[in-house]
Amino acid sequence: MDVIINKNKIDELLTRSVAEILPSKEKLKQKMLSGDRLRIYIGTDATGTSLHLGHATNYMILEKFRQLGHEVIFLIGDFTSRIGDPTDKTATRKKLTRKDVVENTKTWLDQIRPIINLDNRENPVKIMYNHDWFSKMDNKKALELAGNFTVQQMLERDMFEKRIHEEKPIYLHELFYPIMQGWDSVEIDVDVEMCGNDQKFNALVGRDLQGKYRNKEKFVFITTLLENPITKEKMMSKSMGTGVFLDFSAEEMFKGIMNQADENIYQLFVDCTYLPMKEIIDIRTKLENKIADPYEIKKKLALEIVSIYHGREKAVKLFEKK
Amino acid sequence: MDVIINKNKIDELLTRSVAEILPSKEKLKQKMLSGDRLRIYIGTDATGTSLHLGHATNYMILEKFRQLGHEVIFLIGDFTSRIGDPTDKTATRKKLTRKDVVENTKTWLDQIRPIINLDNRENPVKIMYNHDWFSKMDNKKALELAGNFTVQQMLERDMFEKRIHEEKPIYLHELFYPIMQGWDSVEIDVDVEMCGNDQKFNALVGRDLQGKYRNKEKFVFITTLLENPITKEKMMSKSMGTGVFLDFSAEEMFKGIMNQADENIYQLFVDCTYLPMKEIIDIRTKLENKIADPYEIKKKLALEIVSIYHGREKAVKLFEKK
Repeated sequence: MDVIINKNKIDELLTRSVAEILPSKEKLKQKMLSGDRLRIYIGTDATGTSLHLGHATNYMILEKFRQLGHEVIFLIGDFTSRIGDPTDKTATRKKLTRKDVVENTKTWLDQIRPIINLDNRENPVKIMYNHDWFSKMDNKKALELAGNFTVQQMLERDMFEKRIHEEKPIYLHELFYPIMQGWDSVEIDVDVEMCGNDQKFNALVGRDLQGKYRNKEKFVFITTLLENPITKEKMMSKSMGTGVFLDFSAEEMFKGIMNQADENIYQLFVDCTYLPMKEIIDIRTKLENKIADPYEIKKKLALEIVSIYHGREKAVKLFEKK
Repeated sequence: MDVIINKNKIDELLTRSVAEILPSKEKLKQKMLSGDRLRIYIGTDATGTSLHLGHATNYMILEKFRQLGHEVIFLIGDFTSRIGDPTDKTATRKKLTRKDVVENTKTWLDQIRPIINLDNRENPVKIMYNHDWFSKMDNKKALELAGNFTVQQMLERDMFEKRIHEEKPIYLHELFYPIMQGWDSVEIDVDVEMCGNDQKFNALVGRDLQGKYRNKEKFVFITTLLENPITKEKMMSKSMGTGVFLDFSAEEMFKGIMNQADENIYQLFVDCTYLPMKEIIDIRTKLENKIADPYEIKKKLALEIVSIYHGREKAVKLFEKK
C-alpha cells in the first residue's frame, strides 16, 4: 500500500492526544511528509484481561497511521508481562505464569476490533508476541544487552529513585524490564514506538538499542494519559472503580462514563472519540462559560464512546433512557 | 574413599592460611569430625594464562582436603571469566572472547600439577567448566535467579560502593557476576566453597542460593591473600613486576622470591610451603630478634618453594649459587 500524504491528517496525528514526540515532532513530520513508510508499534503487557479507554487512545492513533498506509504492529508482551514492568509500582509486581498470560490476552483482539481494523487485506495490522524472541534468548545475549547500560542509568527511572528513597527493595530482574522492552524495538526493527508517558524511560532505552544495533533513529511517540486534570488521579482505575473497560457491556460503559468527573469531559472527548477537534473545543468553551449542562454533555460523550464499541443503535437507546 | 579423621590435620586445615570460615570454623570442624564426606570447590576465572603463588595457596589446601578423602573440584570459570568479576576493579573489565579463555586455561593444569594430585585414582580431583551450565541457561532462568536479590544488596559490594562514590559506571551485567558465581555452587551442589577474601561477597551469594535451591548449608572457607603486611600491596602483581608465577622457570621463581620484601617472608612460608608451622614460627622469632639474616632466610624460602615446582635438585643448585 502506498503512503498517503495528507497534511491535515498528519497534523492531527502529531497533536491530538500527543504528550511528546522524541527527538522532535518536527522531525517526525518531515519523515511523514517525505512519503517514507514507517513501521510503528505499540506493546501491551498481558497483565490483565481487560483493556480500558486509556489503551484505546493508542490503538485509535495506530489505526490512523494504518489508514495512511504505514505498517502497524500490535505487540503483545506475553514474555515481558511475566517479569512485570515496575512502572508506577512502589512494590515488585507479582510474577505471572505462562497460563495467566495466555488467559489474559485471549479476549484482547475482540476488545480492540471496534477501533482497529485487524482484518484489512491491503494493509494488515501485524500481531506479534515477544515470547517469540525472548523465549529463545540465552543468558549470554541477555548479559550482552545489560552491558549496554549502567546501574546508575537504570536507577534514574522515577519509580526506582522513589523506591530507593523509601528504602523499598528493587529486585535485580526489574532492572531488566526496560532493556527487554527496548530490545522489542530492535527485533521488530521499528521506526516509531507509541507509548504512554509512564513508558518513556523504557522507550528511550529502545531508541538507544535501535541506534546501536541497527544504526537507525527510532521516534518515541508519547500519548497523553487519562488523568484527572485537578486531582491527577488515573481516570481508568480498576481498583478505584472508575475505569471504563473495553469488555464492558453497553450499559456498564455508559454508566462508567456518566460517573466520570466533569473536569474529565474534555480529555475524554479528545482521546476517546472521533469527534472533530473543532467541535470538542466548542464544547469546552460552552462548559467553561457555563452555557452547557455538564450532565447533558457527558451524555453526548457516552453516546459517542458507546457507539464505537456497541453500535449507534444501542448507544442511542441508552442515551434516550437517561 | 573413606574420610580420614585426623584431629591435627583438621586443626591445621582450619587455621593455616585461613582468614575466615562462615558460618563458623567450629561448625565446619564438627562436620569434618563427624566423618561426613564434603564436596569442596574452588573456582578460578580464566582471565590470565599464569597462575601465581596466591592461587597456589588455595590448591595446596584443596589437596589436603583431598588427601583426607573429601571430594574436591577445581572449577574453571570459562564462562564467568568472559563477563569479568568486577572485584578490586574501579573500571569495568574488558570482555574476553571464548578463544581468549581457552588460550588462558591451556597450561593451567600443568601449572598446578606439582601441588595437587590430578591423577589420583582413588580420590580424583574433578575438573569442571562453568561454560557447561551457563551456555545452556536461558534468559528466563537468569532473570529468575536475579529475582532472588535486590539492587540494594548487590550495590553493598565494596567495589560497587566505591565506584558509585567516585561516579564511575557500573555496567548492569556486572551485577550478575556474583549471582553466576553463586549459581556454580548450586550446579556443583557443594558443601564448601574455598576462596580469597575478595570473593567473600560472591561466595555468600552462593551460600544463599544453595540454601534456597537445595536447602543445604554451604560453608565459605576464606583463605588469606598474599599482601604485604605493611604497605597492604599485593605481593603477586604482574603489573608491578612483583609476582611469582607458577609457569616461571626455576631461575625466575628463585629470583622472584628473593625480590620479595623482608616483611613478606613469614606469610610466604605459611601460605606457599609445606614447612611445619612450628619451624615457621621459629624462623619468625629469629627474624624478629634479629638472630637470623633475612637474606639467608629468604634463600631458604626460595629453596622450599622452587623445590615444589621444579624439584629439589634444581632448587638446591640455585640455592648454592646465591
